[in-house]
Amino acid sequence: MQQTVGFVGLGNMGKGMARNIRQAGFPLVVYDVQPEPVAELVQTGARAVETLVDLGTAVDTVVIMVRDLPQIQAILWGPEGLAAALKPGATVIVSSTISPSQARELAQTLTEHGLIYVDAPVSGGKARADEGTLTIMVGADPDVFAAQRPLLETMCQSLYHCGPVGAGQAAKMCNQLMAGVTLAASAECLALAAAAGVDRRLIFDIVTHSTGDCWMLRNRAIQMIEGGRTNSRLDFFLKDLGIVLDSAEELHLPLLVAAAARQWYLIGVASGYGAEDDVALVWPMEQFTGAKVKAE
Amino acid sequence: MQQTVGFVGLGNMGKGMARNIRQAGFPLVVYDVQPEPVAELVQTGARAVETLVDLGTAVDTVVIMVRDLPQIQAILWGPEGLAAALKPGATVIVSSTISPSQARELAQTLTEHGLIYVDAPVSGGKARADEGTLTIMVGADPDVFAAQRPLLETMCQSLYHCGPVGAGQAAKMCNQLMAGVTLAASAECLALAAAAGVDRRLIFDIVTHSTGDCWMLRNRAIQMIEGGRTNSRLDFFLKDLGIVLDSAEELHLPLLVAAAARQWYLIGVASGYGAEDDVALVWPMEQFTGAKVKAE
Repeated sequence: MQQTVGFVGLGNMGKGMARNIRQAGFPLVVYDVQPEPVAELVQTGARAVETLVDLGTAVDTVVIMVRDLPQIQAILWGPEGLAAALKPGATVIVSSTISPSQARELAQTLTEHGLIYVDAPVSGGKARADEGTLTIMVGADPDVFAAQRPLLETMCQSLYHCGPVGAGQAAKMCNQLMAGVTLAASAECLALAAAAGVDRRLIFDIVTHSTGDCWMLRNRAIQMIEGGRTNSRLDFFLKDLGIVLDSAEELHLPLLVAAAARQWYLIGVASGYGAEDDVALVWPMEQFTGAKVKAE
Repeated sequence: MQQTVGFVGLGNMGKGMARNIRQAGFPLVVYDVQPEPVAELVQTGARAVETLVDLGTAVDTVVIMVRDLPQIQAILWGPEGLAAALKPGATVIVSSTISPSQARELAQTLTEHGLIYVDAPVSGGKARADEGTLTIMVGADPDVFAAQRPLLETMCQSLYHCGPVGAGQAAKMCNQLMAGVTLAASAECLALAAAAGVDRRLIFDIVTHSTGDCWMLRNRAIQMIEGGRTNSRLDFFLKDLGIVLDSAEELHLPLLVAAAARQWYLIGVASGYGAEDDVALVWPMEQFTGAKVKAE
């Protein structure tokens, strides 16, 4: 018999992920504080509930896709929280990005309550969440991974079992280190080109065909030069690189480059650009030099 | 009538570049302080000379591919130097990586001596130098670029005319910023994976298929994990990121990430790894954590 799935957090990424679960045929119960995305999911055949307790008593597995650890904790342990309402043996899948040690702590507490925890952070952004072509990095016991595989596959193109709980977040953290650094470096590169008076589109062409090539330059330079949306907030990298650096500190690993990159995101947030698209990172650099990366 | 070409600096990159010029049919005169590469070029039909004066009087154009600005200056202006020996109107092509402002100063002095200067730094490493598939970034007046195009094309797959003298070095500098940062970030990423206890080959697979992907991770991670040569010295990035940071300082552009990356190269050089392959950058990180990136 097919499990009933709950989904909490129908935001930028979560709405598309929930839609793909529903469209694959899973009975789906959804909860969000915003009424609009809930109404959209109801259109696809999902059932909406008013409280987390109603959701918890109705489902076998719940996917949580909210901003950060404090939101996850409020959902699980808050007054009228989810953890107390879930059936014994139910599974909690956390797709938010948190640190590996935070994931292990959540798993331990949920295990003490007779619940199962799965680490399942994602990569790919809103467009791939909508398409169901995310990358999902799972930390879970092998039998738990096997049991949840059909559900997870409805949301992704690439599914990696990275090890026990915490290993999924560790993999995500390694990617966010690279992504956050390469985006900041791409902004530095284009700001340097602008300040040096060389054509930024030519530099884009040269570097993406040379040893400096990276995904972020290929997928962010055009928005920096010509404008256009990325659907990824600048302040998310401040948070994700914070997880990278906190985890590295626990492990006694100095990360000079990731630490420096995080300062650019802090400069962006301090300049009031936290809720802007992540390419706003280049704006303070333009202000320093007076040379514009953005084409007139 | 085809021009006679001189080549000074038959090192790691220069030997292959000179061989490709000769194999394209240009009369070639070569000079190097090491006898072995000179003997190899003579086998392909190049003529060897004992002094830079002999080279200068014999050629219409000379390509210089040596380590740094002090070597270029010694070749051009040293006792028995090249500049005084070259014919009026001869062209000096500098393929070494120097800063844009250094290139403009060289060009100005050579112009005062009735000589023509071309900025032509390259990207691609030894393998592509040998194959004749480098990227060359040219800074020169349009008519000078047009005149030297057939010669430059013998060494490269991609030829970019970036603007006047200095623009070729500016483009190279933008690429070296990205290359130096992404290599350092790749080392941080794999060291973090090792310290966090997740499989480095799995992380390599995940990140190269996600938003953190970059050329350096794709082309250096395997050597960091399994060993193997890259044929690119660690201390070259210390020099190239020095050019990036000096130029950015002239332009009043703070580069937090490039500056932090350069510290890893300095840590590598200070640890005695300057002449090692550039992947040795990860060795001090391994020493900090005690976790090995290199597979046992």
